[in-house]
Amino acid sequence: MRALVTGGAGFIGSNLVGELLQRGWSVRAADNLLLGRVEFIEPFMDNERFHFVECDLLEEAAANDAVCGVDAVFHLAANSDISYGARHTDTDLKLGTVVTFNVLEAMRRHSVGKIVFSSTSAVYGDAGGREVAEDSGPLLPISLYGASKLACEGLVSAFCHNFGIQAWIYRFANIVGDNGTHGVLVDFIHKLTADADELVILGDGKQSKPYLYVKDCVSGMLFGFDHARGAMNCFNLTCEGSTNVTRIAEMVADGMGLRGVRLRFTGGSRGWRGDVPQVRLSPERMASLGWTAPRSSDDAVRAAVAALVPRMAGGVSCRR
Amino acid sequence: MRALVTGGAGFIGSNLVGELLQRGWSVRAADNLLLGRVEFIEPFMDNERFHFVECDLLEEAAANDAVCGVDAVFHLAANSDISYGARHTDTDLKLGTVVTFNVLEAMRRHSVGKIVFSSTSAVYGDAGGREVAEDSGPLLPISLYGASKLACEGLVSAFCHNFGIQAWIYRFANIVGDNGTHGVLVDFIHKLTADADELVILGDGKQSKPYLYVKDCVSGMLFGFDHARGAMNCFNLTCEGSTNVTRIAEMVADGMGLRGVRLRFTGGSRGWRGDVPQVRLSPERMASLGWTAPRSSDDAVRAAVAALVPRMAGGVSCRR
Repeated sequence: MRALVTGGAGFIGSNLVGELLQRGWSVRAADNLLLGRVEFIEPFMDNERFHFVECDLLEEAAANDAVCGVDAVFHLAANSDISYGARHTDTDLKLGTVVTFNVLEAMRRHSVGKIVFSSTSAVYGDAGGREVAEDSGPLLPISLYGASKLACEGLVSAFCHNFGIQAWIYRFANIVGDNGTHGVLVDFIHKLTADADELVILGDGKQSKPYLYVKDCVSGMLFGFDHARGAMNCFNLTCEGSTNVTRIAEMVADGMGLRGVRLRFTGGSRGWRGDVPQVRLSPERMASLGWTAPRSSDDAVRAAVAALVPRMAGGVSCRR
Repeated sequence: MRALVTGGAGFIGSNLVGELLQRGWSVRAADNLLLGRVEFIEPFMDNERFHFVECDLLEEAAANDAVCGVDAVFHLAANSDISYGARHTDTDLKLGTVVTFNVLEAMRRHSVGKIVFSSTSAVYGDAGGREVAEDSGPLLPISLYGASKLACEGLVSAFCHNFGIQAWIYRFANIVGDNGTHGVLVDFIHKLTADADELVILGDGKQSKPYLYVKDCVSGMLFGFDHARGAMNCFNLTCEGSTNVTRIAEMVADGMGLRGVRLRFTGGSRGWRGDVPQVRLSPERMASLGWTAPRSSDDAVRAAVAALVPRMAGGVSCRR
């Protein structure tokens, strides 16, 4: 099987590329290297079944070239930095919605019949801590990131119905682990590297969400791809339990071998505008298909800290 | 109060402009005249509280100019021709999603605090005839038009949360009446004008939806605007009952004074790809606010036929 992985040099994309190669796929990775990094895909560069293309999928021609000749598209390219998108308001529209349209249009033109799309729990907006299932409504996102992912889901669904494309939409919990480039864990490691005495935490520290380990995220996506046979498949991808931000701070300090770090809270229930403080995702639909995440949320955070701390000690940078 | 009505020379827009002027508002109407028509707003041209701007809201500068200085935006501009959007696949992305982003961005820049947005029952996708309420899921649209409206809802919701804009989203039933430019009634009148003996009906004629009279649609929008006080208000806008396509054909023939018209069905449950054959919208949320449509679906179709037939006898055209 030949796959295109968009965002293939990114956090989740690079993990997915590794797993697809392991399973014998031929993989083309496309990335604009805004958040993705060449170092994440360097391990695959010698594999003859791997090919990397640096390109901008906002350009129609680039989308056509990227899609041409593959059996399935794993469309992970997006701006995953939610607060960046709130400050630069056209980011998610362009890198999310328009790029997804370009990818779907290219698939239609080149008769590529399968798309796996990385969506997010952010499409549910702020459900007030209520557990949400795939059929839950309303879908009124409170971030431009969530709005863009909802727009993409709609596009995937409409292309699926109108042009005979089969689709798997996954609404991710917070994903953590190897090759993570941003998010609360990376933030805390950065901050504690700069100042080991005090950690400033956005909000009241009680924001609590499920954290899914990136390897489990990849395994779940591929399990659904192999086992869900509908024309249009939509799944929450999550794990057991949830972890609050104060607990994460403690686990990061622990993982860095720091003792007696003072935690200072900026206050308020949200970390930032657009942050959903309490997220609960029903894992039932994936469970009834036969898949559950092997790690709980706390275990995922602990494993991610263990993976990130040694790498980040060596310095982290990305273009933005 | 000063309003911008985007799509103000269009079907619903021109009806809304008339009602707002009647209520003493100052109204700026913006329209690209692709589907809208100058004749629809000619009755208002002498009103000093009315101002028309022909412009393309895909241009950021045009959106800024249009929005500047108003108290509320009634954002109705869109490609409302669903099957056109299925053939020209970037239409709804551009004229729906990107234009809506431009309008919201302009509102943010100019501190305009209220938006009324015309969404659609198409965001629910094909619910299989189940009655859907505003909190129903999933939202997996089957047309690019529905996908774009869902994208716009997400944008409105995110801008509302992040930038303090108050919003009223209305998910319209099928709207019919004065100044209608397309849709099943207009189609049937055209076809029966060309051939009074036989009418070709897309699908099996059993597609059945609620048809809301355009004056009732406008009155419902303004009632919600006046009475719903949330930051983010989302309503189905519909009426009692529904009308199937065969019944519409009979009512159109009746309204045109034709007897013995043969109905020929192309077959299949859908009129076209992307058509939702059975639509049922819960009117409960608007009802509990205190508004119900005065006309039933059948009455709305009958009133619309009476309004459209005399005008269309004089010939209908639009730029596309």
